[in-house]
Amino acid sequence: MSSTNQQSSWETKAQIARDILEKSIPKQWLIDPKVIQATNTRNVTIAVEKCGLLTDDEIEMTNTTIDGLLEKYRGGIWTAEAVVAAYIKRATIGHQLLNFATEFLAESAINTARNLDKHFRETGTLVGPLHGVPVSVKEHIGIGGARCNASFVSKIDSVIEEDALIVKLLKAAGAVIHVRTNQPQSIMHLDCNNNITGMTLNPLDERLSPGGSSGGEGAAIGFRCSVLGVGTDIGGSIRAPAAFCNAYGFKPTALRNPSFGLVGAMGGQEGIRGCVGPLARNLDDLMTFEKVIWDQEPWEVDTVLVPLPWREAKVSPGTLTVGIMFDDGLVRPHPPVIRALVEAEKKLKASGIETVLWEPHNHPEGWEILRQLYFPDGGERVRAIFNESGEPVMPLTEYALTRGSKEPLTIHQTWDLNMRREKLRREYHALMRERGVDVILCPSYAGVGALQGTPTYWLYTAIWNALDQPAVSFPSNVVADKDLDKADAAYEPRSDEDKKEWEAYDPELFHGIPVSVQLVGKHHRDEELLEAAKIIEGALLS
Amino acid sequence: MSSTNQQSSWETKAQIARDILEKSIPKQWLIDPKVIQATNTRNVTIAVEKCGLLTDDEIEMTNTTIDGLLEKYRGGIWTAEAVVAAYIKRATIGHQLLNFATEFLAESAINTARNLDKHFRETGTLVGPLHGVPVSVKEHIGIGGARCNASFVSKIDSVIEEDALIVKLLKAAGAVIHVRTNQPQSIMHLDCNNNITGMTLNPLDERLSPGGSSGGEGAAIGFRCSVLGVGTDIGGSIRAPAAFCNAYGFKPTALRNPSFGLVGAMGGQEGIRGCVGPLARNLDDLMTFEKVIWDQEPWEVDTVLVPLPWREAKVSPGTLTVGIMFDDGLVRPHPPVIRALVEAEKKLKASGIETVLWEPHNHPEGWEILRQLYFPDGGERVRAIFNESGEPVMPLTEYALTRGSKEPLTIHQTWDLNMRREKLRREYHALMRERGVDVILCPSYAGVGALQGTPTYWLYTAIWNALDQPAVSFPSNVVADKDLDKADAAYEPRSDEDKKEWEAYDPELFHGIPVSVQLVGKHHRDEELLEAAKIIEGALLS
Repeated sequence: MSSTNQQSSWETKAQIARDILEKSIPKQWLIDPKVIQATNTRNVTIAVEKCGLLTDDEIEMTNTTIDGLLEKYRGGIWTAEAVVAAYIKRATIGHQLLNFATEFLAESAINTARNLDKHFRETGTLVGPLHGVPVSVKEHIGIGGARCNASFVSKIDSVIEEDALIVKLLKAAGAVIHVRTNQPQSIMHLDCNNNITGMTLNPLDERLSPGGSSGGEGAAIGFRCSVLGVGTDIGGSIRAPAAFCNAYGFKPTALRNPSFGLVGAMGGQEGIRGCVGPLARNLDDLMTFEKVIWDQEPWEVDTVLVPLPWREAKVSPGTLTVGIMFDDGLVRPHPPVIRALVEAEKKLKASGIETVLWEPHNHPEGWEILRQLYFPDGGERVRAIFNESGEPVMPLTEYALTRGSKEPLTIHQTWDLNMRREKLRREYHALMRERGVDVILCPSYAGVGALQGTPTYWLYTAIWNALDQPAVSFPSNVVADKDLDKADAAYEPRSDEDKKEWEAYDPELFHGIPVSVQLVGKHHRDEELLEAAKIIEGALLS
Repeated sequence: MSSTNQQSSWETKAQIARDILEKSIPKQWLIDPKVIQATNTRNVTIAVEKCGLLTDDEIEMTNTTIDGLLEKYRGGIWTAEAVVAAYIKRATIGHQLLNFATEFLAESAINTARNLDKHFRETGTLVGPLHGVPVSVKEHIGIGGARCNASFVSKIDSVIEEDALIVKLLKAAGAVIHVRTNQPQSIMHLDCNNNITGMTLNPLDERLSPGGSSGGEGAAIGFRCSVLGVGTDIGGSIRAPAAFCNAYGFKPTALRNPSFGLVGAMGGQEGIRGCVGPLARNLDDLMTFEKVIWDQEPWEVDTVLVPLPWREAKVSPGTLTVGIMFDDGLVRPHPPVIRALVEAEKKLKASGIETVLWEPHNHPEGWEILRQLYFPDGGERVRAIFNESGEPVMPLTEYALTRGSKEPLTIHQTWDLNMRREKLRREYHALMRERGVDVILCPSYAGVGALQGTPTYWLYTAIWNALDQPAVSFPSNVVADKDLDKADAAYEPRSDEDKKEWEAYDPELFHGIPVSVQLVGKHHRDEELLEAAKIIEGALLS
C-alpha cells in the first residue's frame, strides 16, 4: 500500500512535467503518424521530407545551417520568424515521432525572432553571429523561468531564475531557443530514457537508441529540429548521440565552455569534470558555436574557466599526422566501424595526410579512474534524490551507479585517484608528442549504434574525459553494409564485456546506418582539433 | 621507555638530514659569529657587508640582480664561477647566522657555473635568460639525486630521481641552484621551524620570524644568499616570508607554474591548490622568473597547467584603478601597516593614479572554506606521517591541523565547499569589475612582522588562495617608527584573534623594520598584476 502510494506520488509529480511538455506542444502542427508511416521509410528524417507535411520552403529552411541562414537574413530573403516557425513545426512533428522534447518554447522563440527581424529592418544589420539561429537545449541546462528537473522526478518543482551562462551567451549572439530536449535518468546513460517524459527514439531507426545522455539533442539534430544543440558530456554524452544520429558533436577540453547555471546532482564533484558542448549538422557550425562562446570571454563571469579566447589554428594537410586507433584493446569495434577506419586510412593517405597506427595507452587505468571518480560518494547523492520522490531506479542508472565503489570513497582514495588521473594525462600527452601524433582517429562507439536500452560500453568516448582531451564525433562517409560487414562468429572475445558488445552486432539491423568516427585532439588544442577534423572530413568525402 | 626509544629513533633519523646539511656546508667559509656581533648591527644583512668577511667584489656581486649579472657576463667582466662562489660564500655565512639552509649544492653549482663560463667563452653567448643566476630552492621541491624530506622526519630516506619540472626549466634557462632552504614542519606555518634542521631566523632581527612556510627562502633572499628563490604558497607561504624579510614574493594564479615533482603529504588534494612561485629582490626579477617559466610551455609536460604563455601586459598609470583595503574587518592591521597604506594612497594620488577604498567581500566565508579544505581528511595524512617517525607535532602544526574538521569530511561536504569556493570566486571577480578596480593594495600581514613561533593569522594572504587571485608582496618604502606608529591601548578588539594580533604590536621591537604591502590582481591576470606593481612601486618610491 505504501509502495503504491509512493508510486502514485512520484507519478503525480512526474505528471506535472509531462503536462508542461504537453501544454507547450504547438497544437497546430500535430500530425497523424500514419502520414509518416505511409512513406514506408525507416529513416524519419527522410520520411518527413517526403510526406508532404512540410512546404518546400520549410524543407529548405530546415536544411540550412548557420552560414546559409545568415546569408538569407542579410539578403532579406528569409525572416527569422519564418525560419524559427519552420523549425518549430519540424520539431513538433519530430517530437511526435521521436519523443525528444521536454518543453517547447514556441511563443518566446517566435517573439525573439520577431524582435530580431525588427532589429534587422531598423538597422540593416544582424544582432550577432547566431542571429535567428534555432537552438535546442538539453533539459538540465538552466532556462530562466522554466522548471529544470534534470530528469529527476524530485526536482520537478525547481524553477530556474536565470538562464545558464551558455544560454545567455548564445542569446546575446542572436540565437533563438525554441525547444528543450530529453535526457536519461541520472544523466549517466549512453541512452535516453527517464521516468518523466520517457524514451527518445533514433530518427534513423526507431528500434535504435538515440544515444545519450544528450539523446534528445541527438534526435533533434538528426531530425533537423534545430541548427545547433547544446549538450553536456562527462563520458560520451555529446559524442554518442551525435554518432548514433548521424550528427556532429564536440566535447571540448573541460573548463573552456561554461557549465555555470546547469542543474544537476553532482555540483562540486571535480574529479572528472563534465562539460557543455555543441551538436550540429556540420563542423563549421560546431566551430561557430565555440567562437561565439569564447569570443564573449565567459571566464569573466564563470571564473573557473580557462581564459582562452578562440584561436585561429594553423593546421595543414601536409604537416598533420593522424594516429588511427582501430581497437582500444578491451572491446573490439563492430565490422562497419573497423571498415570505416580502414577506409579513412586509405583516403587520408590518398590525400597525402600522414597516418600512423595509434596503440592505446593504458585505457584500463582510465576506466578504473573514471568508474571510481564518477560517483566518489558511492552513488549516495543520486540515490537520495531518487528516494526523495520514490521514482524507480532504471536499469542503466543502476548500471552506472554500480561501476564504482558501493561505499563513499575516503578522502585519501580520491586524492590517489586524482594523482593517477594526472599521471595518465601526462603520459598520454607525452606519448602523442613522442609519436608525433597531432590527432587520434578512433571509433565513436564500439558499434554503429545500439538497440534502445542497451549501450553500456563507454570507454571509446569516456577515455577522453578521463584524459580531458577534446574530441569530436562526425560521420565517416561510410555506411554499414551487411554484405561488406559480416559478423565474425569465430571471434573469441577478450572478456564478458567484449562478448556482450560483439554479440550486439546485427548486420541486418545496422545495414544502412551511417558510421561515425571520433577525432581526438591534445588537451587544450580544441581549435587545432576542429581544424584537423575539417581537413580529415574533406579527405573522407573525397 | 618506549617513548624514549621512539624519540631516539626519530632523532636518529633526523640526524641523517642534519649530517647531510652539515657535510654540505663549504668549510672554507665558516666564520666566527663574533665578527658579525662586533658590528653591533641588528640587521645582519647590513652587518655582513660591514664586518670585512666579504671582499668589495663579493659585496657587489651579491648586490647585483638578474639584469646586472647578465650585463657583466656579456661584457666578460664577471665569470659565473666567481659570482656563484660569492653567493655560496655569502650563503655559508648567512646560514651560520640564520640557519636557513637544508643542504648546500656547492660542488654542482660551481661545476655548472664553470660549464656556463665555458659556453660563453666558446660561443660568446649566454645559455639563456638566467645564465649564471644563483637560485635557492625550497626543501620540498625535488632536486634529482637529493633527499627531499619536505620537513617530515619520516621522509628523510626518500631520494628524488629527477628534478622537479620548475627546477628543470630554471636550469634550462641557465640558472645555478646552489642551496636548498628550510621550511616548517607540515609546510603549514607562517613561520619556519621543524624537528630536523630547526628554526630559521630573520635577517632583520633574530627575534623575529622569517615568515613561512618558505621561510628559508625569505632569509636567503633577505640576506642576499641568492638572486631568486623558489618557494611555494597555499596560504601566504611565499608572501609572508617576502614581507617579513624585506623581499619580493609572488604567488601566481594556481595552475600556471608547475608543481610537478614537488614532495609533500597532500598530493591529489585539489580543493585549495598550492603553487610554486618566486622570491626575489625586485619586481623585475619576479617577472623574469615567470617569463622564463611560461615561455618554456610547462603545460606540454605538466598537463594540469593552463596553457598561457607570458603576455606583455598593457597597464598604464592613467587607466589603473587601485582599490585599497586597509583592514579585512576581522583583524586590524598594526599601526605601521595602516600608515604604509595611508602613505601609499597619498603617493598614488600624487602620481595621478586613481584609488578607491576596497571593502572586503565576505572574507569570513573565504576562511571557512580554506580551513575546511586545507585538511579535508581531518589531518589524518599528516598525523600518520608524524606517527611513522614518532617526531613530535609542533604547536604551529597543531594549530594548522585543528583549524578545520577533526574528522575527515564526507565527500558531499567537500562538494559543497568546492561550490562555495567557486561562488566566492565569481562574486569577488564580479565585484572588482563592478567597482572598476584592477588591483587591490592591502596588508601582507596584520603586522610588520612577528616574533618567532607566533604568526597565526593567515587571512591577509590566504584569502587570495581561496580566491585564486595572483598576489605580490613588496616593500612599501615605509619603515615602522615607534614615534609615528603608537600602539592604541584603547582599541577594542573585535574577537580573540583580533586581540591576540593587536597585542602582538610592540613599537620598540618593530621600530625600523620595513613595512611590506601586498598587491592583488584578478584571477589569471598575473602579468597585469606585476605591471601594476611596477607602476605602484614607482609611485611609492617617488
